[in-house]
Amino acid sequence: MKVADVSYRSVWRDGDNIGIVDQTRLPHEFVTRRLSTVEAAAHAITTMQVRGAPLIGAVAAYGLALALRKDASDYGLSASAELLMQSRPTAVNLRWSLTRMIEHVRPLDRAVRVDAAWDEAGRIADEDIQLNKSIGRHGFALIRDLAKDKSIVNVLTHCNAGWLATVDYGTALAPIYLAHDEGVPIHVWVDETRPRNQGLLTAWELASHGVPHTLIADNAGGHLMQHGKVDMAIVGADRVTANGDVCNKIGTYLKALAAKANSVPFYAAVPSPTIDWTINDPLTEIPIEERGADEILFVRGMNQDNRSTRVAIAVDGVAVANPAFDVTPAELVSGIITESGVVPATREGLAPLAAPVQ
Amino acid sequence: MKVADVSYRSVWRDGDNIGIVDQTRLPHEFVTRRLSTVEAAAHAITTMQVRGAPLIGAVAAYGLALALRKDASDYGLSASAELLMQSRPTAVNLRWSLTRMIEHVRPLDRAVRVDAAWDEAGRIADEDIQLNKSIGRHGFALIRDLAKDKSIVNVLTHCNAGWLATVDYGTALAPIYLAHDEGVPIHVWVDETRPRNQGLLTAWELASHGVPHTLIADNAGGHLMQHGKVDMAIVGADRVTANGDVCNKIGTYLKALAAKANSVPFYAAVPSPTIDWTINDPLTEIPIEERGADEILFVRGMNQDNRSTRVAIAVDGVAVANPAFDVTPAELVSGIITESGVVPATREGLAPLAAPVQ
Repeated sequence: MKVADVSYRSVWRDGDNIGIVDQTRLPHEFVTRRLSTVEAAAHAITTMQVRGAPLIGAVAAYGLALALRKDASDYGLSASAELLMQSRPTAVNLRWSLTRMIEHVRPLDRAVRVDAAWDEAGRIADEDIQLNKSIGRHGFALIRDLAKDKSIVNVLTHCNAGWLATVDYGTALAPIYLAHDEGVPIHVWVDETRPRNQGLLTAWELASHGVPHTLIADNAGGHLMQHGKVDMAIVGADRVTANGDVCNKIGTYLKALAAKANSVPFYAAVPSPTIDWTINDPLTEIPIEERGADEILFVRGMNQDNRSTRVAIAVDGVAVANPAFDVTPAELVSGIITESGVVPATREGLAPLAAPVQ
Repeated sequence: MKVADVSYRSVWRDGDNIGIVDQTRLPHEFVTRRLSTVEAAAHAITTMQVRGAPLIGAVAAYGLALALRKDASDYGLSASAELLMQSRPTAVNLRWSLTRMIEHVRPLDRAVRVDAAWDEAGRIADEDIQLNKSIGRHGFALIRDLAKDKSIVNVLTHCNAGWLATVDYGTALAPIYLAHDEGVPIHVWVDETRPRNQGLLTAWELASHGVPHTLIADNAGGHLMQHGKVDMAIVGADRVTANGDVCNKIGTYLKALAAKANSVPFYAAVPSPTIDWTINDPLTEIPIEERGADEILFVRGMNQDNRSTRVAIAVDGVAVANPAFDVTPAELVSGIITESGVVPATREGLAPLAAPVQ
């Protein structure tokens, strides 16, 4: 997508390095970074300079290419993959992407592993873009149908599942961008998404593309749905189980409950690599990342001198819990928007998406 | 309650003035203010130096006494009451308190109106304390019952309905304080409560009293309930309808939905003046205050030099919606904890609480 008329992906190859947009500096500053080592790639994922399940997968793939430049041995491959795997435990794309990279590279001679890794990482990135374009088309059909009866379609989204969360275009936002581009009147309610406020990334993306939107506290969505101000909800996901349960940013579950109670269609938009075919009981089998207390205790923003400043909102010593994801049971989900179409959030609905390699 | 071993109420008479705790400075600084005019009292309510339905009612009552010092005429009484009534439109205690003050003062000679107003405001404050003590006893019985089967009772609360929100003791927190004092092991999940973060007031109160608690993002409560980590939820309310619908801080509805879905008992703790017997359809008849965009766009905290600093979390020009309250339908509410006992959230359950004067 374009930033001030220059086209960007959220991750790209830059010679023997990779380039990223540092998302911890947004929405206030657009800063790119060059990463030269697998440790830097893992650090970028852990600190959420890059975030979003598909983007994490792509950065991890490129990170493995960086690793192989230093050590192309089997041991080096395994150790680096393990380092990257631990950087964000909840995102299934990370595992999917690393498994694909390992399977591609390990059979090869050491001498060609680095080039092969760059190529495969590039394919993962390119394929993500194609998946998202397809998700956009299928999700757009849902929005277009709603638009037949309304002067404007109001969509609520949680967290950021836009182009910044993928290599380009986004998952949940891809249908919204397409609707806007096709002239369908659309307005987006943007959940702030505490504690990391990824909603501000969504607002920044939507503003950059000219899509009308309104920022709200995470607490407000239920009230808006009660009053008929939300026509549909679309979120991304870090994992979707084979049964259609959606593991996504903490708070998604609360919005899905409110959507169900108020007959608002609730969709998750995901590429098929986000589907985890191995999970039976999502509440016990998906590891929910517990992130640091500082994300709750401190807020970063620009002070009156327009300098990035971190302020403490609580007093010292307050105990904090900070689970980063929750699970929305399939029965609350109207459908899963995938690259192959919109399917029911059921085992039967998702089954046709199962690829031969699981 | 005590602050550093000194007993405080959240509002008190101070000669011909009133004293308040400036809650916008908490949790970082404990600052009291002296208010000398009705305009200062209305300003304190509007800017949320004082907040919480019962406290607003008491401050408004004292504010009318301040007004009558300057103009004890019928016109002065009406104009000042109107000014105070507009300071927070959602809290029904405000109307109840002002109506009571007017009915008490208007029949009197001008010469005695000021003293009568001080006396009546004092009675409103004293009565609030007695109501809250009774609420505490009845709510404590619920906690004690849960404690029979558990080593610790985990209670989730939203916003601040503690002593800071009332004249003393609190509504939702009164049973929690009593349980703690009675030696029942209790732990409180404290919702941050964006955008104004009143959860930090709750955390400050609980810390001051030594009650174990954990601060969480508003998004986390559903996840915790799914995992059996919440035994009950207790919130305050700005209004309860005659049918048992609960109008409270924005986001309460989402927690009530999650409680229902996970079989977690969900209670509102309110003194009977918080019941609005005039409302039939809460979604259309309760005015929901829309507060300023700055509450969403800016966050105040202490910078690294320990100075109170406001930071902008969004970029300029972002559209914001900021509804301050929502309505939790009665069917999601397990019961209303009142000064007269715990009653069903139904018209029949609440009817015995209707006072002769409505």
